[in-house]
Amino acid sequence: MGNTDKNVRDGATNCAYDHRRAVADTLALIGDKWTVLVVGTLSKGTMRYNEIHRHIEGISQRMLTLTLKGLERDGLVTRTLYPTIPPRVDYELTELGQKLVPPLRALYDWAEEFRPAMLLAREKFAGDAYQADKRITK
Amino acid sequence: MGNTDKNVRDGATNCAYDHRRAVADTLALIGDKWTVLVVGTLSKGTMRYNEIHRHIEGISQRMLTLTLKGLERDGLVTRTLYPTIPPRVDYELTELGQKLVPPLRALYDWAEEFRPAMLLAREKFAGDAYQADKRITK
Repeated sequence: MGNTDKNVRDGATNCAYDHRRAVADTLALIGDKWTVLVVGTLSKGTMRYNEIHRHIEGISQRMLTLTLKGLERDGLVTRTLYPTIPPRVDYELTELGQKLVPPLRALYDWAEEFRPAMLLAREKFAGDAYQADKRITK
Repeated sequence: MGNTDKNVRDGATNCAYDHRRAVADTLALIGDKWTVLVVGTLSKGTMRYNEIHRHIEGISQRMLTLTLKGLERDGLVTRTLYPTIPPRVDYELTELGQKLVPPLRALYDWAEEFRPAMLLAREKFAGDAYQADKRITK
């Protein structure tokens, strides 16, 4: 193989490697539990901060603010400030954010449908480990 | 409203609340970056530990072991030990794990397609923040 061919091949390999890592990094951002719940909530339409907070019980104000800021930075959510008294802040999914809704919903549906099976597997796994422990102590 | 009605309503509200949190917890497990990449890799078929490790560049042995253990505990992956010398360990998606592949692939495809748009948005966001800083210092 000539040197040029080798360089071309290495370039392609590195490129594929960088690409997979890059996509994985993006996944890490959008696969986050709170991101999923915030995007799901905003899929119902434009909402004010407090409305989103009410919809996602269990999220702290700090975590909601951080999640919304991240989504805004990544172009998935727009934040609109109305200079009323008190000021009103609306959040809305962008076109990019809207496109994320169907794949996230598919994942949510999977979690909903197969959560009982996962819990069952976990119980069984814990039971098996317990059995193994018992055997060892004999 | 009678007391019984109220109890029924509160029960339903609590139940819906618990359910959403439960599904969110499950999402947190499967939305993890390494889980996504390991399930994606195993969707190609049964693999030995080292093969999986080669497929997912950038994952540490510790993280791969942890991820596989979690997937096994949750009933998404089976681990088969062959008592050869050296011992051979195969990993394979269960039926439950197979069902997770299409929604995860949809999410991966989204990340692949819209990553450039996200990066562009992030650059713009950083630029806007810089502009805002400049205005403040005037």
